Amino acid sequence: MAQKPGIPKGTRDFSPAEVAKRQYIISVMKHHFEAFGFQPIETPSFENYDTLMGKYGEEGDRLIFKILNSGDYLAKANDEYLTAKDSNKLTSQISEKALRYDLTVPFARYVVQHQNEIEFPFRRYQIQPVWRADRPQKGRFREFYQCDADVVGSTSLWQEAELVQLYDSVFSDLGLKGVTIKINNRKVLSGIAEVIGAKDKLIDFTVALDKLDKVGEEGVKREMLEKGIAAEAIEKVQPLFSFTGSVNDKLEQLSQLLASSEEGMKGVEELRFICEKVLELGLNQSILDLDVTLARGLNYYTGAIFEVTAPKEVAMGSIGGGGRYDDLTGIFGLKSMSGVGISFGLDRIYLVLEEMGLFPETVTEGTKALFINFGDEEAFYSMKAIKKLRSLGHKVELYPDKAKVSKQFQHADKRGITFAVLTGQEEIDKNMFTLKNLVTGTQETLPLEDLIQRLG
Amino acid sequence: MAQKPGIPKGTRDFSPAEVAKRQYIISVMKHHFEAFGFQPIETPSFENYDTLMGKYGEEGDRLIFKILNSGDYLAKANDEYLTAKDSNKLTSQISEKALRYDLTVPFARYVVQHQNEIEFPFRRYQIQPVWRADRPQKGRFREFYQCDADVVGSTSLWQEAELVQLYDSVFSDLGLKGVTIKINNRKVLSGIAEVIGAKDKLIDFTVALDKLDKVGEEGVKREMLEKGIAAEAIEKVQPLFSFTGSVNDKLEQLSQLLASSEEGMKGVEELRFICEKVLELGLNQSILDLDVTLARGLNYYTGAIFEVTAPKEVAMGSIGGGGRYDDLTGIFGLKSMSGVGISFGLDRIYLVLEEMGLFPETVTEGTKALFINFGDEEAFYSMKAIKKLRSLGHKVELYPDKAKVSKQFQHADKRGITFAVLTGQEEIDKNMFTLKNLVTGTQETLPLEDLIQRLG
Repeated sequence: MAQKPGIPKGTRDFSPAEVAKRQYIISVMKHHFEAFGFQPIETPSFENYDTLMGKYGEEGDRLIFKILNSGDYLAKANDEYLTAKDSNKLTSQISEKALRYDLTVPFARYVVQHQNEIEFPFRRYQIQPVWRADRPQKGRFREFYQCDADVVGSTSLWQEAELVQLYDSVFSDLGLKGVTIKINNRKVLSGIAEVIGAKDKLIDFTVALDKLDKVGEEGVKREMLEKGIAAEAIEKVQPLFSFTGSVNDKLEQLSQLLASSEEGMKGVEELRFICEKVLELGLNQSILDLDVTLARGLNYYTGAIFEVTAPKEVAMGSIGGGGRYDDLTGIFGLKSMSGVGISFGLDRIYLVLEEMGLFPETVTEGTKALFINFGDEEAFYSMKAIKKLRSLGHKVELYPDKAKVSKQFQHADKRGITFAVLTGQEEIDKNMFTLKNLVTGTQETLPLEDLIQRLG
Repeated sequence: MAQKPGIPKGTRDFSPAEVAKRQYIISVMKHHFEAFGFQPIETPSFENYDTLMGKYGEEGDRLIFKILNSGDYLAKANDEYLTAKDSNKLTSQISEKALRYDLTVPFARYVVQHQNEIEFPFRRYQIQPVWRADRPQKGRFREFYQCDADVVGSTSLWQEAELVQLYDSVFSDLGLKGVTIKINNRKVLSGIAEVIGAKDKLIDFTVALDKLDKVGEEGVKREMLEKGIAAEAIEKVQPLFSFTGSVNDKLEQLSQLLASSEEGMKGVEELRFICEKVLELGLNQSILDLDVTLARGLNYYTGAIFEVTAPKEVAMGSIGGGGRYDDLTGIFGLKSMSGVGISFGLDRIYLVLEEMGLFPETVTEGTKALFINFGDEEAFYSMKAIKKLRSLGHKVELYPDKAKVSKQFQHADKRGITFAVLTGQEEIDKNMFTLKNLVTGTQETLPLEDLIQRLG
């Protein structure tokens, strides 16, 4: 019995058209990453178990794919764990490697391990797959690409300004108009919590505020009260509930609101620098917006926080995000290395471009002309032309067998090949080629030089 | 205590220069793959356990990295295996996924799974990492890339001829002169065994013959005798031991030698077609050689067998190989799908190009100009120029902090950046930029348009 072929849930095969479209997005990203001075690195697909474990919280640890040791992996395993069937405790005894969960921890490990070869500040980009044992669902996969650009070793806010420009450059080049680049600052969020006297309730407060556009002002206030935030405290930040206007208007309101918080005012200052520079330099197609409800990975970021949302026409949510983290590499023994970075969501960007019809047609353009095979002599005559055409960069093919011409035309049709080249005895005698446009049906007989030009 | 950072043995980090060089090789391959009508596909990094196991022999099964199931993976494990510490038997109970071992089995699985979407003959290329739990050693890694081009669904020998051309195109384009593309045919090897009356000794015979250039004629004969091949049998194939001359000479000798074997003569005929077409069409920089000792994966191939060796100046051995296999997809339930394909050894090609100094300098060219940071006002003035330059595709950067100028120059130097752009108050007043060539030391003050030209 033959096996019924299938793939693990949460993974995907990519067809030629899908690979071409994904490569197109990646090539646009690479181009801009490099224009901005980011350099590519690559790290192994799996890291040592200890490098990854304990870096993403308990939930993260559970979602990391562990690799079983080779050979007689049970030989040194603890008998007690085995008889008790204690999966949790056994794992570290039978697995010493795990698939990477993201690109940030491997990057931190890389920086520390290669610190003597690296010239800081170091701008690296990395486009590689990561794996998570998450429950697969629409748009969430167990294997997916991350596309990250990070700078490590500088606290200059120019980096943040540049990262906003980088987002704008990539999305504008992809033809995506109306992308919103949202910015916030961890210090502003801390400042708000401080002002309302609820420093210890920062996360509850932020989680509730984040729901403003879904549940409205009353809903947010109700949740805050439920979480134990006092009514007078909420009153103090009333302006947040009607937070509108230009970026500058919002900065003005924020600085009034946070006047009493040193940390909060530091956050406002940082935001002002970044926004001012970005707006004065100008964005191509994107909108910069200050969003005080933005809190992605709150515990992780220490300064700027970014999130990018797709144009309103498509309901896709976040297509990118990032921020500044003050001690990227401390966990591996290299202190005081501030980092700031952004990430692009390849899968979602793909879906947005698809939905908006923004993939250029040329991206999936494959073979341009199929040479019809009338037999070995004719095929040999064709191959001489094919060799020449390919050396000039043209994508051309010979149908491999002497099959019925209708079958060969059909093959070209199904492959989306526009031209057929016919080389029968007549063409050989005249040293010519008959070029047939399979879309319009027109055909003409030409010498090789003209054929090359027509396919140009 | 901070963790000492490291990576699993047999894996590698790739620095920016290494990534750039690898990408260069890959981009050359892709270009030619596509010119020849091959289309890219990608498959998941891990496959179902059953898809991979049993496809590569017992040794292969051992070298496959298995992924531990998530959650309480021991819950359903057999108690007996656990108490007996039977690693072998337990594995399939606690692992249902494994990292791919090569790209051929996943390709076969892909073809069968997507057979209704595929238009045959299907030419696909695939450039992805594979993993093997092999003992790491010089040039052998546990994670490495395979770069494969295969055609499935046609028995036409034009495919073999084209694959030889494809090898030649890629290696010639990489500047590698004197690559030898060796060809043989499984049917010829079978024919020889038949002629000497040792059909059951095919592998022993081939393994011995393969050592001709190492141990000489006498050594080979001795090994054959030891393996139980009769002296008279060996006498019959005496010409093999002095197998020299042009491809055509060798074909002539072979057809005399194998006159009595139908299968052998079929092999000679196939070889003649392929070699004749390839030689008549001509190769750019490579040498085609008929090598009757060539037997890679003997049990796997059914027709042509290829192996590519690096130019003699470097002792690298095989940098590619492939062949025809008559039933690629049968194991997954799709019968009679003949396939033929070739593989490129990325790591070895890299080492060869490095050793021969063949990487173009432009490949690792990074940022062209560093704008020196004299403070926020000057930096803003710089950023306007930087934005313009980047939009034109130039790689330029601002040093992020207002540091000592000597430190900033040093940074440019260490990064290998040729130009510094100085924008002090004087430049701002004149709306000019001072461009300093850090290699020659010369500098000139220019308006933006000229700066753009100079960096062009």
